[in-house]
Amino acid sequence: MESRYKKLGELGEEGVLEKIISKYIHEPLPGEYLDYPDDARDILPISPRILMNIDGYSISSMKLPWRTWSDVGYVAVAGAISDQIAKGAVPRDIMVSLGLPPSMEASVVEEIYRGIDEASRDYNLRLLGGDTNSSSTPWISVAVIGYTTAKKPPSRRNARPGDIVVVTGVYGAMGYVAINGVEKATHKKWVVEATKRPRPFLETAIIIAGNYRGVHASIDVSDGLGYALGELSKRSNVRIVLEDKPLYYKELEEICSGSTHCLWKHILNGGEEYGVVLAIDPRLSDKIIDYMKKFRIPHKIVGRVEQGYGLVFEKEEISIDEIMRWDHFKGWVSIL
Amino acid sequence: MESRYKKLGELGEEGVLEKIISKYIHEPLPGEYLDYPDDARDILPISPRILMNIDGYSISSMKLPWRTWSDVGYVAVAGAISDQIAKGAVPRDIMVSLGLPPSMEASVVEEIYRGIDEASRDYNLRLLGGDTNSSSTPWISVAVIGYTTAKKPPSRRNARPGDIVVVTGVYGAMGYVAINGVEKATHKKWVVEATKRPRPFLETAIIIAGNYRGVHASIDVSDGLGYALGELSKRSNVRIVLEDKPLYYKELEEICSGSTHCLWKHILNGGEEYGVVLAIDPRLSDKIIDYMKKFRIPHKIVGRVEQGYGLVFEKEEISIDEIMRWDHFKGWVSIL
Repeated sequence: MESRYKKLGELGEEGVLEKIISKYIHEPLPGEYLDYPDDARDILPISPRILMNIDGYSISSMKLPWRTWSDVGYVAVAGAISDQIAKGAVPRDIMVSLGLPPSMEASVVEEIYRGIDEASRDYNLRLLGGDTNSSSTPWISVAVIGYTTAKKPPSRRNARPGDIVVVTGVYGAMGYVAINGVEKATHKKWVVEATKRPRPFLETAIIIAGNYRGVHASIDVSDGLGYALGELSKRSNVRIVLEDKPLYYKELEEICSGSTHCLWKHILNGGEEYGVVLAIDPRLSDKIIDYMKKFRIPHKIVGRVEQGYGLVFEKEEISIDEIMRWDHFKGWVSIL
Repeated sequence: MESRYKKLGELGEEGVLEKIISKYIHEPLPGEYLDYPDDARDILPISPRILMNIDGYSISSMKLPWRTWSDVGYVAVAGAISDQIAKGAVPRDIMVSLGLPPSMEASVVEEIYRGIDEASRDYNLRLLGGDTNSSSTPWISVAVIGYTTAKKPPSRRNARPGDIVVVTGVYGAMGYVAINGVEKATHKKWVVEATKRPRPFLETAIIIAGNYRGVHASIDVSDGLGYALGELSKRSNVRIVLEDKPLYYKELEEICSGSTHCLWKHILNGGEEYGVVLAIDPRLSDKIIDYMKKFRIPHKIVGRVEQGYGLVFEKEEISIDEIMRWDHFKGWVSIL
């Protein structure tokens, strides 16, 4: 392909749009009219309530050494739709804004968009357009519209004493990267495989939407499970008591050689797992957990909500100040 | 205010959100539930057809010497909603993604958001949230949802022979910057005033939506009027014959001392004017132009659509290869 070996500065903004990006853009459905190269797209909403979110990234913060450019595109989409899924919305329409240096090979745009396209196919999304900009620091921003049948989507501020805490997803791989560094992580095949393209579970949205009365609160795990649990507790003004670990990578058992403290540390630190933490009404928890089994969403009951404050471990297995989250401006900080 | 003199790296991502951004975020309307700090917002659409767009900028490309940080926030929003207005949608809901270096003063975020807030007040927008990222090159990306009653929003691909071409807005100020450079432009008060905070005309959306059958094609002027006219011609496979100049700043007459060529050059080059070029069915043009007068939208009939190709000047006043547009990767390029 002609564009493959040119720099962006030679191909130009219009060349990038025409020759690379346009072929990944979804055409209008019947009843919709605007299409590439129009700057906006018209959409017939498929539910009476829609959800909107935007998620931006400096690409350097996503570019683990084992992630290709197409992985970067994939992960940017996965992260953006994860916010929708946690709120009970099925994401459908996405738009992407991209900043890249003119000295970059045009093939990088092709690869990023191939990753976006793969995520779009995996999650039935429609890429409706986007723009490109010149930036010496590469960045990507993804806006999403999702659709929900929930009359009241769950916020992170409404967990109630008595609720059961369920965590979806499998933990410990990004925690391994956070604790041991990318250099050591590069040699761990299970870490590389788990973190290359994290995958949110779309069906979680359907379960939340269909059982919204039973899902009192929900938050996605993008900045580490410890942070997500801490946020749920802080914003809902409740105590979360952790009784059990969520699902985690079995390879950690050898690494931690029997230390529960080590396991928890790997599980609670990390980020980009894109599972969901749910605070569920105990009267509806059996039904909701049955759905999770039916849809094969990896999940675990990890604890309960009580009156009070903070994250508490039933067996005092880890101190809260060992749980970190990545702050884009400060770097690693305690969740306290 | 405490945050005022701190660097972003000291205040941290969460501090920036809590102490600065959150106070500009619009609260949910009755029937909506999600709110800051939830990552997504639920919206009850107020029309059966919605429009979505995203618009990203490297801030250096927006930062004319006379633009403050609040102007940057304002212009980013103005540019993003301009795409909606040109398609007959009234923009309402926006989300912002921001990338800034940790070494930057936190007060810069405050100023950018004050500009976003001023644009939101001027245009009745709801800022629904956003995120912040660390980036050595500052960038901003704005996603918009707008609402339209038009059964068929006008694309840029449907101008037809016989149509009348109408241009809204006043031209020549950004052309002066493009032709003479920012240094000279700094000393021209009229240029500074016109380009500091360009203002799209919201009422244009209402006119287009209410008369969509008569508006065959529409494009906003974000990359220069010459480019917008050229795009309309190219994408619609028609010739556009320019019979008259659009409205322009009267200061140009002295600068151009009677040269029509000079006037056209200043008018057609530029960008960020955020007017609209419309190709209108001649049977409905009187009605549409009456509305423009009623809403006090500056406008002018500039020409007509014919069968054929390209931009043609009735009096051969300027050569097409003198009309430039800014390509983010290539720099200034001919629109040819």
